[in-house]
Amino acid sequence: MHCKDLESVCILGLGLLGGSLGMAVNRVWPNVRRLGYSHRAVTRQRALEAGTVDEVFEDLTKAVANADMVVLASPIGTFANIMQEMADHLRPGCIVTDVGSTKVLVTRWAKQYLKGAEFLGSHPMAGSEQRGVDFARADLFEDAACIITPTAKTQQSTCELLDEFWTALGMRVSRMSPAVHDKTLARISHLPHVLAAALVNMSDAEELLLCGKGFLDTTRIASGPAGVWHDILMTNADNTDRAIGKLIDELQRVRVVLQNDDGKKLTGMLERARVKRDDLVAKKLRRKELPA
Amino acid sequence: MHCKDLESVCILGLGLLGGSLGMAVNRVWPNVRRLGYSHRAVTRQRALEAGTVDEVFEDLTKAVANADMVVLASPIGTFANIMQEMADHLRPGCIVTDVGSTKVLVTRWAKQYLKGAEFLGSHPMAGSEQRGVDFARADLFEDAACIITPTAKTQQSTCELLDEFWTALGMRVSRMSPAVHDKTLARISHLPHVLAAALVNMSDAEELLLCGKGFLDTTRIASGPAGVWHDILMTNADNTDRAIGKLIDELQRVRVVLQNDDGKKLTGMLERARVKRDDLVAKKLRRKELPA
Repeated sequence: MHCKDLESVCILGLGLLGGSLGMAVNRVWPNVRRLGYSHRAVTRQRALEAGTVDEVFEDLTKAVANADMVVLASPIGTFANIMQEMADHLRPGCIVTDVGSTKVLVTRWAKQYLKGAEFLGSHPMAGSEQRGVDFARADLFEDAACIITPTAKTQQSTCELLDEFWTALGMRVSRMSPAVHDKTLARISHLPHVLAAALVNMSDAEELLLCGKGFLDTTRIASGPAGVWHDILMTNADNTDRAIGKLIDELQRVRVVLQNDDGKKLTGMLERARVKRDDLVAKKLRRKELPA
Repeated sequence: MHCKDLESVCILGLGLLGGSLGMAVNRVWPNVRRLGYSHRAVTRQRALEAGTVDEVFEDLTKAVANADMVVLASPIGTFANIMQEMADHLRPGCIVTDVGSTKVLVTRWAKQYLKGAEFLGSHPMAGSEQRGVDFARADLFEDAACIITPTAKTQQSTCELLDEFWTALGMRVSRMSPAVHDKTLARISHLPHVLAAALVNMSDAEELLLCGKGFLDTTRIASGPAGVWHDILMTNADNTDRAIGKLIDELQRVRVVLQNDDGKKLTGMLERARVKRDDLVAKKLRRKELPA
């Protein structure tokens, strides 16, 4: 199957990611019918009004029944139940994917609950600290990275379909195993989130009123939805724990430098970080992953 | 003395802060003569061309000789030498201040080196990760906080003058002792910087190419100039060390929660951080310290 053969896509969960996905699909493939599910009536209504999908369902099993592709776009903590509920209602040949931020457990659940339906995990790395269908935008996925996480059992044609799908939506697609994905994301995404929350929590609220833009930027992601991040961290707890441990080691090295009044070493650390981050930003600019 | 009586202000160091200060002073008091010093010829030329000051000096002692107010705006590490060099050349009654990010050592140096000249530390909390006179702007200080740090010996009239000075430039001025200032800033500014650098340094450069906007925001301040931050951290090493220790304690609590699979407690932590940061942002918006 190729994307041009898709007649309908079903999106389960119509928040920022699900809503934006519906809009983006419509822009690229205006003939694809977009079916949407949310357990909340008000979300279904807003999703329809905002044009994110063509039709909404209160009943999950009816939503998926006629879809060529099903995308789970609700918080990860809901996935196991959703998979169990929909397994008997998928059309033969239906491809199931998701937009969750962790992959090992999700892939395991799919194997356990989807009764042989073809599943391949996706992690489109788009979004913001905003939530809800009201923030949905057709260009959310453009110029961002997407990781698909095949296993040894994934069909090659499924990899190709999802690669084509996310690429058509403007994403830079790469592939890695669920295990490598989760280990990597713990370091570049889940750890920074824990850190931002810890930094806010350890600070005195009165004191914080004096803070500058630096503090606000460093902690921006702490304003993300607690429920979504609970699910991410709980389904990647071991890797996140290890990443925190690694950061603590790094911080202890800084403490030793400060305690030893070792200015030369401190400059080295700061300069290394500056150069490394500036290189990263330059590369992202060249790839157009950042606005110029 | 009141600001309206100022005839000349001398700015030592013509980078982002010094250059912006010159521009801001000119906007509020167009009749005040702005004298500038930089040890670099190219900076002196750019500072003049950009209209940040009216006159530049290669010789520090000549720069300060006719000034009613002298502002140290170079990296903190240069302050002790500058103070020693200028002490004998200050006009009687001249007020000396600075824009440095730490205050205990700076205040001690002033007492030690300025031979009785009136010094009162200032910390205008404006700036960015950019550096250099080319980024100077007249509105850099607007709607930002400024802390002045009097001691028991500071004259009341000096406090009033500097309060009036920074307020006229658009800042929200507060007062605290040098010791309280440094302890507070360690937590809300110096710790976040150490953290951003540590997060970048612990990460694999290849892996980082996959990072999203969250990581880039969390680490933005790590792109700040290493030399400036070396001086800040080295002159506030004890407080920064303690702040890192406090953060490590907070991170260890998160690890315990992850290791115990305690989802309820994790949600509590994340939600507490989210509410606290959102409150902070709301307050900053009300105070117009953030763009609406």
